[in-house]
Amino acid sequence: MQHDEFQTQATLKRVAFALADAAGAAILPHFRATDLQAENKLDGGFDPVTVADRAGEEAMRAILATERPDDGILGEEFENKPSASGLTWVLDPIDGTRGFISGTPTWGVLIAVGDETGPKFGVIDQPYTRERFWGGFGAARWTGPGKDAAAVTRQTDSLDEAVIFTTFPEVGTSEDRAGFERVAAQCKLTRYGMDCYAYALLAAGQIDLVIEAGLNAYDIQAPIAVIEAAGGIVTDWQGNPAHNGGTALAAANPRIHALALELLNQS
Amino acid sequence: MQHDEFQTQATLKRVAFALADAAGAAILPHFRATDLQAENKLDGGFDPVTVADRAGEEAMRAILATERPDDGILGEEFENKPSASGLTWVLDPIDGTRGFISGTPTWGVLIAVGDETGPKFGVIDQPYTRERFWGGFGAARWTGPGKDAAAVTRQTDSLDEAVIFTTFPEVGTSEDRAGFERVAAQCKLTRYGMDCYAYALLAAGQIDLVIEAGLNAYDIQAPIAVIEAAGGIVTDWQGNPAHNGGTALAAANPRIHALALELLNQS
Repeated sequence: MQHDEFQTQATLKRVAFALADAAGAAILPHFRATDLQAENKLDGGFDPVTVADRAGEEAMRAILATERPDDGILGEEFENKPSASGLTWVLDPIDGTRGFISGTPTWGVLIAVGDETGPKFGVIDQPYTRERFWGGFGAARWTGPGKDAAAVTRQTDSLDEAVIFTTFPEVGTSEDRAGFERVAAQCKLTRYGMDCYAYALLAAGQIDLVIEAGLNAYDIQAPIAVIEAAGGIVTDWQGNPAHNGGTALAAANPRIHALALELLNQS
Repeated sequence: MQHDEFQTQATLKRVAFALADAAGAAILPHFRATDLQAENKLDGGFDPVTVADRAGEEAMRAILATERPDDGILGEEFENKPSASGLTWVLDPIDGTRGFISGTPTWGVLIAVGDETGPKFGVIDQPYTRERFWGGFGAARWTGPGKDAAAVTRQTDSLDEAVIFTTFPEVGTSEDRAGFERVAAQCKLTRYGMDCYAYALLAAGQIDLVIEAGLNAYDIQAPIAVIEAAGGIVTDWQGNPAHNGGTALAAANPRIHALALELLNQS
């Protein structure tokens, strides 16, 4: 690796952590506040935007304006900023707003930086539990209460030994759900309702599969970076790159990924 | 209140917290360990017992043997101990073993003390996030990272403003589930997969309803004590006392409880 490239990677990692710190500080005062204002973003669907969501993204954009003025920004809450450097930051201040408004510490701040080929580095941060899962540039780690460990995915070889997570039945069409159910029926244990926290657990070697649909790029880029750096694999349900959103099949290793992919595509 | 009764209450509260501390210390080294041994307790069902579960209950029983030798013990993992004092401790070292083995901090240590009429004092403790929700003897509070607050349930008056949690679809019969679905269909937001943590959130004023079936006494006594001390109400699906297990309808206040109870009993 050239010295310049090493310097750039160190800078991007430092800035990513600064973004996570700033977003957490902006968001936490609103978590479990009793006066939380939520509004419906989509007619007919429950997709609340909170004051906290906007405050978190504003805090991150303020840092990027100073530290990385030439990089682009793709964020959930505000307008896209085109990239002049070739690099773009992909930000979701609160992934899992349903969890956030119901008080569960399963939401997270998602931060990724990369280019049109996908994320190079990502962070999944849970500021309330003080957990941070990060990966890219050849390393993956997680820190939490009393923990600081390499993030390494599992080597599970068969679905009947696998633990699978999803946001179904809350998210996705009935046809999507049927695909998920074909895989889940073969797994040892299916769990629900974890938002982005499930991807963090996959990267940290706790679970084997996450299957989701209806994703935006900012929902999945940070998970892709962390999971792939930890040894896992993330694609869409056709086995193609998932970093532009849509469906996602995240797996602890290529073998369990292949088994799940085959079942997703039966019908 | 007589002086003796006040003394007894202070002792029971102190012992309950000592049990929670000891159980947490015994269990935490096993949480997210990669060599966790889980075995199936029930044929055909997934109800893992872990080394951690047993270590947690043993740690609590050791304290009770010294501090409260005349009290009874009803614990998940070991034989019942009859009460000579009229008081019984009801212990579940890890409520939410599915969550525990998949790395989510949604399991909890459940501790209640009471008599045949029900629990008098209870603790829901999450040692990894360092959160403790407790209630009884005229008070209810919760502590967590950066938090120390009265636990006060919500005053939600209508189901269309309510957030409901359940362990369905993981637990319960299809008939039970239909009852839950009638209520959930009227609610603003339904969430899954939180184990005992949902009861803690209800007590802390974050959500409005928890509906479950297939419970044991040790699953529900601590939640009853904490929620009722915080202003909520817990009954079975017929509106009767729930402390012996079976079904549970936990609600933030009597009005939302009545609305949910009516829907549960339509068919």
